[in-house]
Amino acid sequence: MPRTAAALIIGNEILTGKIRESNLEVLARELRLLGVELRRVIVCPDEVDQIAQDLTALREAHDFVFTSGGVGPTPDDVTLPAVARSFGGALQRAPEIEGLIRGYWGERVTAGHLRMADVPEGSELLSNPEVPWPVIIKDNVFVLPGVPQIFAIKLRLLRETIGASRPFVSRALYTRCDEGTIAALLERVDRDFPTVDVGSYPLWRDPEVKVKLTFDSLDGEAVDAALAACRDGLDPADVVRVE
Amino acid sequence: MPRTAAALIIGNEILTGKIRESNLEVLARELRLLGVELRRVIVCPDEVDQIAQDLTALREAHDFVFTSGGVGPTPDDVTLPAVARSFGGALQRAPEIEGLIRGYWGERVTAGHLRMADVPEGSELLSNPEVPWPVIIKDNVFVLPGVPQIFAIKLRLLRETIGASRPFVSRALYTRCDEGTIAALLERVDRDFPTVDVGSYPLWRDPEVKVKLTFDSLDGEAVDAALAACRDGLDPADVVRVE
Repeated sequence: MPRTAAALIIGNEILTGKIRESNLEVLARELRLLGVELRRVIVCPDEVDQIAQDLTALREAHDFVFTSGGVGPTPDDVTLPAVARSFGGALQRAPEIEGLIRGYWGERVTAGHLRMADVPEGSELLSNPEVPWPVIIKDNVFVLPGVPQIFAIKLRLLRETIGASRPFVSRALYTRCDEGTIAALLERVDRDFPTVDVGSYPLWRDPEVKVKLTFDSLDGEAVDAALAACRDGLDPADVVRVE
Repeated sequence: MPRTAAALIIGNEILTGKIRESNLEVLARELRLLGVELRRVIVCPDEVDQIAQDLTALREAHDFVFTSGGVGPTPDDVTLPAVARSFGGALQRAPEIEGLIRGYWGERVTAGHLRMADVPEGSELLSNPEVPWPVIIKDNVFVLPGVPQIFAIKLRLLRETIGASRPFVSRALYTRCDEGTIAALLERVDRDFPTVDVGSYPLWRDPEVKVKLTFDSLDGEAVDAALAACRDGLDPADVVRVE
């Protein structure tokens, strides 16, 4: 069984359509490489109680939880207090982060800036020379910022901590058939290869390909066999290409 | 109190990073125009039990629930059976949809195609001449396809059914200040205007603007007043523009 993960995306800006969410895709792809199965994502508003409640449910049911957003210095940034509440603990000023803040803002430092140094007690702080501002880790919860560029950089910093297991293998077959025509074939392949996740996605704007079929598993041989079984069931003229 | 909504986005393709989710933003913006508050979004895998369980929780807690994905003819399309399960009912063939399917595919029709006509019993089917393939509505659950182009078209078809209440008013102030510097000001505005949702978003790649402040409410006058209070608290040289 692969290790599992969930994500909690925090932010009214997403729920009101002001900002297009883009961290989910980056996280999903990274986790595939590390052999971790992303099972669930929740988008919730900037509300301490709601975040804490969702986080508790997610962290109890998954090996890893990644939060995105809500870690800045303004009043709508409530993720760190919510993480602390989920664990029933308090916030504690992290001298390492306070030093970075004072070093950067100098005499212009404010109480708002310093709030960013208040982390859930018992947090681990992970940084390296390239990413001096640490990722805050509380047990199996990884607190990441919502800004996409920083989210991606910090996520890469976590590779070693999460550790790579066998990555997922994913292959694809592109066909000219429509989904309904191949549904019975897919049902059979799905049944014959229980370890392979078979997906079927119509490509609406593609002039040549009607459907992309995908085959995913931790077991690369099973992926190859499922793809071959599917290919054998199709008229060769209907196969555009395989990847 | 505004009416509330939630979304359930169904699809392994999203959780594995194969496809970038884009319907959430379209839904969020549409709901703002209709004066409906999107409170919660869940992304879950193509699994009947999980979808049914999430759907039950979401539909009991919100005025409207929108599902995205999982309504095609292949074995990974399990949304309609999951909706039926959530309501404790069975699937029932809808002659109106069966007619459309047989009309389109003619003699090439398969059992896979016809599965798309099996809707939760008691569903309402909503269509118009522009969108002949109906939206399936079961109580307060609106079942929409994952394909973005069709999702958007069908969502617009729902405008009348959902009905517009007073739309949300949203204004923005762009400033050269950094977030920490204005945190205390924002805290005060947030407290003085409890009906206004104040957001603060750093713009990392903008050469001129450091932070975008947003003011959202059903009460337009309160939005104007909160924005003015915020502007008054800033050095005029730090205000780039208001919208």
